[in-house]
Amino acid sequence: MILVNGKPASSVRVSDRGLQYGDGLFETLAVVHGQCLRLDRHLARLASGCLALEIPALDETELKSDLRTVSHGVARGVVKIIITRGVGARGYRTSSTATPTRIVSSHPWPPFPPPNRTEGIALRVCRTRLSINTRLAGLKHLNRLEQVLAVNEIDDPRFSEGLMLDTEGIVVEGTMSNLFYVVAGRLQTPELSRCGVHGIIRAEILDWARSHLDEPVELTRDKPETVLESEECFVCNSLIGIWPVREIETRKIPLGPMTENIRSDLEAAKVIAAD
Amino acid sequence: MILVNGKPASSVRVSDRGLQYGDGLFETLAVVHGQCLRLDRHLARLASGCLALEIPALDETELKSDLRTVSHGVARGVVKIIITRGVGARGYRTSSTATPTRIVSSHPWPPFPPPNRTEGIALRVCRTRLSINTRLAGLKHLNRLEQVLAVNEIDDPRFSEGLMLDTEGIVVEGTMSNLFYVVAGRLQTPELSRCGVHGIIRAEILDWARSHLDEPVELTRDKPETVLESEECFVCNSLIGIWPVREIETRKIPLGPMTENIRSDLEAAKVIAAD
Repeated sequence: MILVNGKPASSVRVSDRGLQYGDGLFETLAVVHGQCLRLDRHLARLASGCLALEIPALDETELKSDLRTVSHGVARGVVKIIITRGVGARGYRTSSTATPTRIVSSHPWPPFPPPNRTEGIALRVCRTRLSINTRLAGLKHLNRLEQVLAVNEIDDPRFSEGLMLDTEGIVVEGTMSNLFYVVAGRLQTPELSRCGVHGIIRAEILDWARSHLDEPVELTRDKPETVLESEECFVCNSLIGIWPVREIETRKIPLGPMTENIRSDLEAAKVIAAD
Repeated sequence: MILVNGKPASSVRVSDRGLQYGDGLFETLAVVHGQCLRLDRHLARLASGCLALEIPALDETELKSDLRTVSHGVARGVVKIIITRGVGARGYRTSSTATPTRIVSSHPWPPFPPPNRTEGIALRVCRTRLSINTRLAGLKHLNRLEQVLAVNEIDDPRFSEGLMLDTEGIVVEGTMSNLFYVVAGRLQTPELSRCGVHGIIRAEILDWARSHLDEPVELTRDKPETVLESEECFVCNSLIGIWPVREIETRKIPLGPMTENIRSDLEAAKVIAAD
C-alpha cells in the first residue's frame, strides 16, 4: 500500500523535487504486530533532517495517521517514509510556497537468511567511496547514488553487505547499515561528522552502552586494517537488527560476547525484531 | 508538455529509482526554432553517463522522437531529459531486468535579465561545498542536494549565480554553470576529475580555444583568491550561454575581449542562443 499526502496513490508528479534533484529524506521502519519499532526516534530524525535541508516542518499527526493505515494488521513488515521538498518549477532554487510531498508505503519483510543473525555474515570492502561533506553528513537524504553503486559491486552472494570507506580511505559504514567493532575490549563505531548516516539502531546501541559498559563507545576514524583485526564486529540497521560479521574479505573475525549481549538486550527491549 | 517513456503523462511511479535514490541522469537543452542546440553533444554525454552508472543504453531513436514532439513549434524554450534506472523493489540493489524511465519535458524560456549577458553578473561565493568523488565527478546525475542548498543560500537578488568550492576549498563551478577566467592572458577553467559537471558549453569553449588560442586552456585547481584577481571571468551553460562576471562578492572584475570573442563566436555558430 502507498499513501501520497495521505491518499492511496502509486505515482508522484514528474515535477516533484524528489525525482528532479533527490531533494528530500527517507526513513525505513520495521513493523511488528502493526507497530512501527522506535517510531519516535525515526520521527525525530526525520524532523531534524527537514530542519537541516530547510524543508518545512511535517504535520506529525498526519504522518502518524498514514503510518497506522499502512501498518494496520501487518504481522511483520517494512514501512518506508519519503519526504520531498514538493513540486517545483525547473531549476535548483526552491519556492517558499512549495508544500512537501509525504509518501508512506508498506513492503513485505525481506527474506533475510536466518544464519545472518546467528552465525554472522561476510563483508566485502567496496571500491565506491563515500564523499565527505559536513553539510549532508548524518542525514538520510535521497542522494544515494554512492550506495547504489557500492552495493552493485557485490556480485558474489557470499557477501551479505559491503563496507564503505570515505574518499580518504577511512571506514564509515555498510551500504545499508552502521558498523561497530571491538578493539582491546572496547566498543568502537565510526564517527559520522563528515559522511554516513546517523542510524537509529546505532543511536540505540550508543544509549545501551551508556548504561551497560564502563567505558563510552569510542568514535573512530580508522583505516580498514583496524577493523580487520578487531576482536568482534557487527553491522546494524532497523530491519536486519544486528548481524555479526564473521569475515571481511578473506579475514576471519571471531563471534563474541559483546555482540551477543547487545543483540539479545535490544531484541528483548523490542528495539529490533527478534527472530 | 511531458512525455514519460514516449507517452504524455505528468507522473512517475513512486517506486521509480529516480525518486527513491536519485538514481539517474538529466540534460537541459536550449530549443531555438524547434531545434535542440548541440543535441548530439547532449546525447553523447547522456550515453556516457548511463555507461558510468551502468544504466542500460538508451534507444536514441525513441529519445529523438520525444525531443521532436516536445520541441515542435517552440520558437525559444527549454527541454529537459531525465533518465532513471527505472522502477525497482525497495533497497539499493538494482535489478538486471529493470527498464530505464525516459522523461522528456518542455519548459518556457527563463526570464533571464538581458543585462546579465551584456553587462555581466555578480557572483556570491557559496558556503555549501561540493563533495569530492571521482566515481561521480563530471556526471550530470540526479543527486543535486549540494546545488539546491548552495543556490538557496543566495537571498540577495543582486547575485545571479553562486560560485562553488569543493570541500578542500578549490574553485569548481557555479551552482548551475561552469566557470572560466583569464590569468596573465591565458584562459583557465577548473579541472573536473574530482567533482563538478562536464558542461556542454564548457566543452564547446575548450574546442573553440583549440582553434583560436595559441595556448591551450589551463585546467586548474585554484583557490578563490586567484579567480578574484583574474583579468576576465565568465560563467556558461546551455541556457544562459555566456554571462561575464563583473563582480565576485565585493571584488570587481573587468569585462574583457576574450569573453566577448567567445560569446560572439559561439552565438554566431548557434552553439548558444543569441539575444
